[in-house]
Amino acid sequence: MRIWIIAGLFLMAATGSHAQDMVGFSPEAARKQQQIEAAFDAELRVANLDDWMKRMADRPHWVGTEAGAENARWMKKQFESWGYDARIDTYQVLFPYPRVRLLEMTAPEPFTAALEAVAVEGDPYTAQGDALLPSYNAFSTDGDVEAELVFVNYGVPADYEELEKLGIDVKGKIVIAKYYGSWRGIKPKLAAEKGAIGCIIYSDPKDDGYYRGDVYPKGPFKNATGVQRGSVMDMPLYPGDVLTPGYGATEDAERLDKEEAPTITKIPVLPISYADAEPLLKALGGPVAPDSWRGALPLTYHIGPGPAKVRLKLEFEWSLQPAHNVIATLKGSEFPDQWVIRGNHHDAWVHGAADPVSGMVALMEEARAIGELAKDGKRPRRTVVYCAWDAEEPGLIGSTEWVEDHLAELREKAVAYINTDGNGRGFLGAGGSHSLQTLVTQVAGDVPDPQTDVSVKERRIAAQLTRGGDAEFALSALGSGSDYTPFIQHAGIASLNLGFGGENAGGEYHTIYDTYAHYTRFKDPGFRYGVALAKTAGRIVLRLANAEILPFDFKPWHATVNEYLEEVMQTADNLRAEVEKHNSLVERNAYRLAADPTEPTADPELKAAVPYLDFSPLQNALAGLKETVSGLSGKDFTKLAPAGRKRLNDLLMHAEQQLTDAEGLPRRSWYKHQIYAPGFYTGYGVKTLPGVREAIEQKKWDEAREQINRLAGTLDGMKAYLQQIHDLAP
Amino acid sequence: MRIWIIAGLFLMAATGSHAQDMVGFSPEAARKQQQIEAAFDAELRVANLDDWMKRMADRPHWVGTEAGAENARWMKKQFESWGYDARIDTYQVLFPYPRVRLLEMTAPEPFTAALEAVAVEGDPYTAQGDALLPSYNAFSTDGDVEAELVFVNYGVPADYEELEKLGIDVKGKIVIAKYYGSWRGIKPKLAAEKGAIGCIIYSDPKDDGYYRGDVYPKGPFKNATGVQRGSVMDMPLYPGDVLTPGYGATEDAERLDKEEAPTITKIPVLPISYADAEPLLKALGGPVAPDSWRGALPLTYHIGPGPAKVRLKLEFEWSLQPAHNVIATLKGSEFPDQWVIRGNHHDAWVHGAADPVSGMVALMEEARAIGELAKDGKRPRRTVVYCAWDAEEPGLIGSTEWVEDHLAELREKAVAYINTDGNGRGFLGAGGSHSLQTLVTQVAGDVPDPQTDVSVKERRIAAQLTRGGDAEFALSALGSGSDYTPFIQHAGIASLNLGFGGENAGGEYHTIYDTYAHYTRFKDPGFRYGVALAKTAGRIVLRLANAEILPFDFKPWHATVNEYLEEVMQTADNLRAEVEKHNSLVERNAYRLAADPTEPTADPELKAAVPYLDFSPLQNALAGLKETVSGLSGKDFTKLAPAGRKRLNDLLMHAEQQLTDAEGLPRRSWYKHQIYAPGFYTGYGVKTLPGVREAIEQKKWDEAREQINRLAGTLDGMKAYLQQIHDLAP
Repeated sequence: MRIWIIAGLFLMAATGSHAQDMVGFSPEAARKQQQIEAAFDAELRVANLDDWMKRMADRPHWVGTEAGAENARWMKKQFESWGYDARIDTYQVLFPYPRVRLLEMTAPEPFTAALEAVAVEGDPYTAQGDALLPSYNAFSTDGDVEAELVFVNYGVPADYEELEKLGIDVKGKIVIAKYYGSWRGIKPKLAAEKGAIGCIIYSDPKDDGYYRGDVYPKGPFKNATGVQRGSVMDMPLYPGDVLTPGYGATEDAERLDKEEAPTITKIPVLPISYADAEPLLKALGGPVAPDSWRGALPLTYHIGPGPAKVRLKLEFEWSLQPAHNVIATLKGSEFPDQWVIRGNHHDAWVHGAADPVSGMVALMEEARAIGELAKDGKRPRRTVVYCAWDAEEPGLIGSTEWVEDHLAELREKAVAYINTDGNGRGFLGAGGSHSLQTLVTQVAGDVPDPQTDVSVKERRIAAQLTRGGDAEFALSALGSGSDYTPFIQHAGIASLNLGFGGENAGGEYHTIYDTYAHYTRFKDPGFRYGVALAKTAGRIVLRLANAEILPFDFKPWHATVNEYLEEVMQTADNLRAEVEKHNSLVERNAYRLAADPTEPTADPELKAAVPYLDFSPLQNALAGLKETVSGLSGKDFTKLAPAGRKRLNDLLMHAEQQLTDAEGLPRRSWYKHQIYAPGFYTGYGVKTLPGVREAIEQKKWDEAREQINRLAGTLDGMKAYLQQIHDLAP
Repeated sequence: MRIWIIAGLFLMAATGSHAQDMVGFSPEAARKQQQIEAAFDAELRVANLDDWMKRMADRPHWVGTEAGAENARWMKKQFESWGYDARIDTYQVLFPYPRVRLLEMTAPEPFTAALEAVAVEGDPYTAQGDALLPSYNAFSTDGDVEAELVFVNYGVPADYEELEKLGIDVKGKIVIAKYYGSWRGIKPKLAAEKGAIGCIIYSDPKDDGYYRGDVYPKGPFKNATGVQRGSVMDMPLYPGDVLTPGYGATEDAERLDKEEAPTITKIPVLPISYADAEPLLKALGGPVAPDSWRGALPLTYHIGPGPAKVRLKLEFEWSLQPAHNVIATLKGSEFPDQWVIRGNHHDAWVHGAADPVSGMVALMEEARAIGELAKDGKRPRRTVVYCAWDAEEPGLIGSTEWVEDHLAELREKAVAYINTDGNGRGFLGAGGSHSLQTLVTQVAGDVPDPQTDVSVKERRIAAQLTRGGDAEFALSALGSGSDYTPFIQHAGIASLNLGFGGENAGGEYHTIYDTYAHYTRFKDPGFRYGVALAKTAGRIVLRLANAEILPFDFKPWHATVNEYLEEVMQTADNLRAEVEKHNSLVERNAYRLAADPTEPTADPELKAAVPYLDFSPLQNALAGLKETVSGLSGKDFTKLAPAGRKRLNDLLMHAEQQLTDAEGLPRRSWYKHQIYAPGFYTGYGVKTLPGVREAIEQKKWDEAREQINRLAGTLDGMKAYLQQIHDLAP
C-alpha cells in the first residue's frame, strides 16, 4: 500500500528528511512520532539489560523450575512498576525430565558415553553441578534399544537418498546424525520413517567446535564436552503441548493419552558431545562417507553399519508442569481494542543468557521506556501487549497454548505480533509478513548501528553487497523456531521476528555454557546491540501503535509472493530436468559404467517422469492482485473521514488472516497460513507457498493440482478483500 | 584434418566397424593395422609387469644411486633382447642430497620435528632404514633461519591477497603452507617474493590423510608420519639441470655457478608430515584462518604470525650426478628418419612403485610386444624410440637434457612424443596436442576397459556424464609435471601424456610408502590397467608408426584454440567486472561497514580499471584458420602420388613446431610454445595461450597487447603453413 509513501513524497519539501515518507503517518503526525521515538531512545539504559540478564540467568530456569516461576513473578512486578496491567497466564503442559540416560558401545570394544559437559575456569555458572539440566532431547520417547550403528550425515532426506545409492539400509539400526542441516527434530522423525530404532545426534567440531574457532573458555565455540539440548517434538505437525492439539492446555482441558500424542518421537533420541561421538565414529566400518558428510574429527568417517554396536536407554519422568506466560498490557489511548503484541520467551534450557534472556531484557527495557513515555503523556494510541512466554524451548508451548486459548479474541483485536529471541552483535535480521516490509525497512533506516556511523539498514546492505547480494533490504519468510509460529501460521496475525547477529558466533546454544560470563565476553559486550534491538522493535511497536493508517504495504507483499511462485514453478522444472537427466544416464548405463566396481553401489532405477502442471490459476490470481495492489497506489486515503479511516484500519489489521485457510495444510491442519510454513522435512526452514511447494517436492502431483487451486482461491479472496480497501477511497 | 574420416566413411560398407574411419589409414591399411593391433594385444603379459615392478622397485633408486644405474643397465639389456638398438645417454647434472635437516619450534614451547616416516607392518620395503632417501625438497637452497611462523594456506597468489586484506605481512617470517593448491615449487617462490625467509610445506590430512580415507597400512592414504618429497626447482622458468639452461649437461658443458643458478629457491624449504605440523599449527595465534583454508587436524587453524617461532636449518651436498637415460630404437622399415618417441621416467624418490615404475613397466611390455611384432614381420614403418628417463623427479632433468642435447635432430625427425608416468585403476586421462585428439579418441574407443564391457573411451564418457560433464572425449591441455615438457613446450614436438586413474587414490606419492606392497593392494591389483595403458599407448605408437598419412587432424585443434581465446577474453571481462564491483563497494564504504570492527582488516583500496583490449588480431587469425582447416576437409589426399604423400607427411610432422616462437614467453624464453605452457604461478597447472593469458592475469596491459600481436603472428604463420598442405591436394 504504497499510497502513503507517495503522499509523503508530495510533501517532502515541507517535512524533515525522516518524516517525509513515514508509512502510515501524515507528515505532521510523523514529526510528532519522531519526537516520541527520540524520547524513547533517550530512555533506554544499558545498565538495565546488564542487571536483568545477571538476575534472570543466574540459575537454570526451564519450564517447571522454581527459578522460572520466580522470573515470571519478578517480570510481572517489573511491568506493573512501569505502568502496565500485568498478569500471569498459566497452562499445564506435558514436560519430560530425563531420569535415565545411558549410551554405551557394546562392540567392537566397550565404551560408555560421559554425557556431561565440564565446568570451565572463569565461568562459575558452569559449576552449578546438579542444578544444571542433564543434556537430552525433549519429547524423545522412552526406550531401551541395542543395534549396529549407521552414520547418516545430517539425517535429512538427501542423506537417505545417498545411503540408498550405496545400498545401505537403516532398518533395525541405530543412526548417528550430526546436528545442523535441518532442525534437530527432523532427524529422529526421518530415521524412524526409515525403520531405525534409535537416534543419536552429536555436534561435529566442523559445524560446532574447534574447526570454527577457539573453544570455550579460550574462545566462544563448543568444547569437546558441550552438548546441545533441544526439543525433538514433531513441531511441523503442530507445536505446543503435545496433549492438547489446537486448544489451550488449561487446567481442565481434555488431554490425549501420552501414548497417542503424535508429536512425541517414535524412537529414543539422545544428543551427545563430540568427545562422546568420537569413539563411536572411529569404530564404524563400511564405506567411507561422501566428502560432504565428513566432519572435523581426526578420523576417517565411515558409514557402517557396524561393527560398532550401541545400546541406548532412556527413561523420562513425564509430568504436567505449569507454564507461566507473563502478559503485560498498556491500554491504548484511542483504540484499546487494537493490540500490538510484542513477545519473547523467558524459559531457558539452562541459564540461557543468550537464548532467550538477551532478547527478553531488550524487550523489557523497551517496555519500560514505553511505560515512561505513557507516564509522560505519550501513551500509545493503540494497546500494546508485552508478553514473556514460558516453555518455548520444549516446543513453543507457552505461546502456542496462549494463542490457541485466546484465538477468537486475537483474530479480532491483534494488529500484529513482533517477536524476538536471542540477540547478539552484528547485523539486523528481520523476517515476517511482507506487508510489513516497508515499515521495517523505514525503521531499520532510522536506527543507528552501534559500531559504525550508519543505520542498521545501511550496515546490513553493506554486508549483503560484500557477500554478492543486492542492495535491497528485504524480510525473510518465517518458518519456525520461535514464538511467532502460533501467531502467524495458526492465527494468521501479521508477524515479525527480529534480531541482531553475525558477529556473535559461538557454541553455547542450549548448553551449560550459555551464561552471563560467556555472553558478555563474546555475544554482545556492553549490550550495545541489545539496545539497538530495543530501538528497532520499540520503533516498530510505536509506529504500529500510533499510525493514523496502519502501516501495511501490499506492494512488496505482492512482489514477494510473485517471486515465490516463480521459484515453485522453477522447482517443478528443475525436478523434471533432473529426472530426465537421471533417466537418460540410467538408460545409457552411465552410472554402472562410472561406478567403482570394488565399492558397494546400488544400480539406480528409472524415475517416473515429472508432469507439467497448470500454474495458470496462480498466475492469473497474482496478475489480478497486481492490478488491485497497483490501484491502491493511486488513491489518497488521508482524506478519509474518521469512520472511513476506522473501517480502513479494521480491514488492514485483518488482511493477513485472508491468507489462511481453515482446513490448513495437507496432513497438518494446525498450519493455516497458505504463504508461509515450516517445512515438513526441514523443521525450522521455511517453505513458502507450502501446500503447492511441498506437494511438488514430494512428487504428489494430484495434491499439487489441488493445492494450486486452493491457493489460487485464497489469493482471489485476498484480491476481493483488498478491493474493499480500494472501494473505501474517497 | 578430417578428410581421412570422410574418405573412410565413403568406404564404410566395405570395411569392418573399426576400420571404417581410422585416421591416417585407407580402409585396406586399416584392416591390416587392426590385425597388427590384435597381435600386439595378444602378446601382452600381466606377469611381466608384476615381475618387473618387483625388481625395479625393490630398493630406492633416485638419480645417482647404484640401484638406479642398475635399473638402467638392466632395461638396456631388456630392450636389446627384444630386438632394439639400445644405449644409455648419460648427463652430469647437479643434484642436492640432504645432509642436515633441522626443524624446531623455539617458542612458545620447544618441539623438534621428527622428519621421519615410520615403517609399517606388512610392508617390508618401508623398513629399509638408512637406504630410504630422507624427506626433503630438492633444490631448496641451504639455510639456517629462525622467525615467527605464518600459516599461508596453500601459499598461492590468492592466499597472499587474503593475507593482505587481513593486514598480515610475511616479511621476515617463516611460512607454513599446505601441499596442493599449486605445484609445490610455487610456494617457496611466492613466499620469497613476499619477503619470507623460510618455507615449510606439510600434508594436511584433509587433502592427504585420514580425512580422505583409511591410512596406511589399513588403507592407502597418508598416515601421520608420511612426507611427500619433491622438487622445488623453479621449473616454470626452465626445467632440467639448473646449471645448463637450454643446452645438454654433457660432461664438458659450460656450467653456471650454483650461486647464479636462477632455478634454485631463494629461501630454505622443507616438507613435513602432519604429525610434525600439528604442534606448530596449534601454537599459532592471530586471526582464525578463513573457512576454505582450514584442514582436518583437530585444532583451530590460526594464521599467526607467532607466537610460534621456528628454526629451520638445511644443508645439502651439492654434487654432479650421472643421469642415465635409456634410449632404445627399433628402426622403421620404410621411414627410418621419422621417429615416434615414447617415454617414461625410471628414477624414483624412494621405491616409486607407482611413480614411475607402474608406467615404466607398462611401457616396457609395450616395447617388448612391438619387438615381437617386428620379429614376426610386422616391423613398424616408422622408427620407434623407447626412452626411460632418469632424474625426472628433481626437475625433468634427464629428458630435458636429452632434448636440449638433440634439439636439431629431434625437430627434424620427431613425429610425436608419447609420455606416461605413474598409472592406476580407473579412467583414461589424456592430454596433449589437440591435432592428435582424433587419433587418441579412436584408439580409446578400441581399447577395452578391464572392469566393464565397454571401451576405455565409453567408460570415461560415462564418468563425465555422471559428474555433470558432456559426452565428448577431449584431450586436456598439457602444463607440466612430467617428461613431455621439453618435447612440446621447448622443442615444439606434438606430444601426448596418458594414464589411468581415479580409482587409485592414496597418500603414497613421493613417500616411503610408494612400494610394491602398497601398489598391488591399492593402485592396480592384478596390473589390469597397466595392460590397458600398454594397449592404449602401444596403439597410438603403432598407428603413428604405420599410418599412410600421419594422423594429425586440425579441426579439433582449431576448435580448442578458439575456446581458449574465448576463455581469455572472458578472463579480461571478468577481471574488469570484478574491479568495477570492488571499486563500487570501496566507494560506497561497504567493506568497512560490513567488517567486524573487533577483527583486524585492512581497508581495501581502489584498483586501477581494466582496459578493453583489442582481441581482433586473434579473432581474425582464427577466422582465417577456420577457413583453411575447413578447406582441408574437402580434399582427398589419398590420391596423392608417393612424392606428394612424403611431402604431406613431412609437413604434418612439423606442423606443431609452427606454434612455437623462438623468443619464447616473456621472462622465460625456454618456453617456446604459444598455445600451452605451465603457469608461472601454478607450476604444473596449464595456461593456454600463455603469453596473452598471463599478461592479463598479471594486469600487464602493454604486454598483453604485444602478446596478442605475437600470438596472432604465430597463428597467421600456422595458417600459411596449413595452406601449403591444402595446396598439395591433387
